[in-house]
Amino acid sequence: MNEEQKIIRTFFKPLADNKESLELKNDAAFLFKKKKMIITTDMLVEDIHFDKRYDPEILARKLLRVNLSDLAAMGASPYGYTLNVAIPKKKRLNWLKKFANGLALDNKNFRIKLFGGDLSLSSKIFLSATFLGVVEKNFHKKSKAFEDSEIYVGGSLGDAAIGLNILNKKMSFTENKYFLDKLFLPEPQINLGKSLNGIADFCTDISDGLINELELIATNSKLKANIFKSEIPVSVETSKILKKSRLKKKIFELVLTGGEDYKLLFSVRKNKKKFLKKGNKSIKKIGFFSRGKGVEVYDMSKKKINFKKKGFCHF
Amino acid sequence: MNEEQKIIRTFFKPLADNKESLELKNDAAFLFKKKKMIITTDMLVEDIHFDKRYDPEILARKLLRVNLSDLAAMGASPYGYTLNVAIPKKKRLNWLKKFANGLALDNKNFRIKLFGGDLSLSSKIFLSATFLGVVEKNFHKKSKAFEDSEIYVGGSLGDAAIGLNILNKKMSFTENKYFLDKLFLPEPQINLGKSLNGIADFCTDISDGLINELELIATNSKLKANIFKSEIPVSVETSKILKKSRLKKKIFELVLTGGEDYKLLFSVRKNKKKFLKKGNKSIKKIGFFSRGKGVEVYDMSKKKINFKKKGFCHF
Repeated sequence: MNEEQKIIRTFFKPLADNKESLELKNDAAFLFKKKKMIITTDMLVEDIHFDKRYDPEILARKLLRVNLSDLAAMGASPYGYTLNVAIPKKKRLNWLKKFANGLALDNKNFRIKLFGGDLSLSSKIFLSATFLGVVEKNFHKKSKAFEDSEIYVGGSLGDAAIGLNILNKKMSFTENKYFLDKLFLPEPQINLGKSLNGIADFCTDISDGLINELELIATNSKLKANIFKSEIPVSVETSKILKKSRLKKKIFELVLTGGEDYKLLFSVRKNKKKFLKKGNKSIKKIGFFSRGKGVEVYDMSKKKINFKKKGFCHF
Repeated sequence: MNEEQKIIRTFFKPLADNKESLELKNDAAFLFKKKKMIITTDMLVEDIHFDKRYDPEILARKLLRVNLSDLAAMGASPYGYTLNVAIPKKKRLNWLKKFANGLALDNKNFRIKLFGGDLSLSSKIFLSATFLGVVEKNFHKKSKAFEDSEIYVGGSLGDAAIGLNILNKKMSFTENKYFLDKLFLPEPQINLGKSLNGIADFCTDISDGLINELELIATNSKLKANIFKSEIPVSVETSKILKKSRLKKKIFELVLTGGEDYKLLFSVRKNKKKFLKKGNKSIKKIGFFSRGKGVEVYDMSKKKINFKKKGFCHF
């Protein structure tokens, strides 16, 4: 449990003592009172989540996509959102024009509606969105796995974290543009999330790194997550640089612990495995849950791997 | 139309081309798809809406109350909210403890639920909340008045603006505490908002000053708002300082144009006047709409009054 999770448990969980909040264990809340509507919110803060080099159009799309990824993790269909935008006075019209272009693009791509919002000046850029999604009978409200359940990820990991290292001039490859695109424009796995309703034990998006997210689920489930290094999917581009780069160890650490890939992470009981749709070619089994606690990563020779960083946290 | 309203019309209205957004003319959106649920969002930004002297407990309560006031203006019953909190690292636990206390207090006062949220570090404090409210068949979705409709306010104006001047050491009175309390803890007029459903032409909360809000409605309605200075209600305390202070003119300007009172402003057609509940002792008729445009304020001798500032705007 990281600092943010501790703070939420200490200060906010007592305030969210309602069925809708799902004990604050999910990134979104379920509205019992009316029909089955999901609400979720996420923010992007200057110098914490991004810096001045980001294009406002990209920021708009990323803001929508990180929220849409939370809906994907709930198994919800996106519906619409409200928006808060606080920006510096200087050149703000130009900034807003680009920002609005980005919103328009992804409003269309994801068929979502802007419901309203609030606008303010600010010395630093602050963006937040609150999304509503619609769910059917089944959705991912649990954040608990079962013993022997198999662990899956929705696709290749590490690209966004490598992109961040490229942006910060800590790495450079001929494939730079590919990695930066993955950092700037993650793909929320909405269809995958929906297809797993009633099948997955739990479902979450990997925003803070695979190990970090797995550790949280392991703790909630009072189980141990066992992961095989050789099974973790990486992109063709990451695979290339893993082969040729001297930074091999560092890059693999990014695959395990880097954030912002927004791929789904879920587990499935063996008897439900047959319901996993064959169309989901991107999903990959990477391990299983067993009695015990924490997260264990095994290399080819089934030896345990130690790693320093578990993931990252914005608080 | 101020700068913010222009920007919203230019950049965001084209994006909000859905029935739910109510053309972005209200502070909240109505969710057609499911049952009648209202969603609204508002933020508080350091150095724009408040400064370091504000107690985090007060900030929490003000954040909730400015949002609740938007629900009041829609005629909605508060349901619950999501929250975004970005704060500096230093002393953040102490800050959050006080902040959570404030939330707890007003969660109880207004019987509202926290659904979830997002937390981040930030060099400046940014707070936003998104509220859901429930409405019956009638609610205040229009922002248009009718010719000859009478204009009402929900209670005394100017107290919060005087409080802000006291906080900024531009004024000082023996009643300082009263005015600061009004600035820090506005009372959202939820019951009044609900009681006006089906009766008022439009209903809005005066967050940016009476003249500012009236001008917006007058423009939307293609009518002129006529206001009588002598009819504008002020508190006993404001009445006292208006009598004894040399700042009489300045204080009256604050009553007309000062923001953050969060009293409701609405108009009622003459044939619906009889439905105004007698229990609403705080409401006061201050003028009427007629053919023409803009806002006109008349003094005792029915002469027009000129004023420099129309209100304030955070963008």
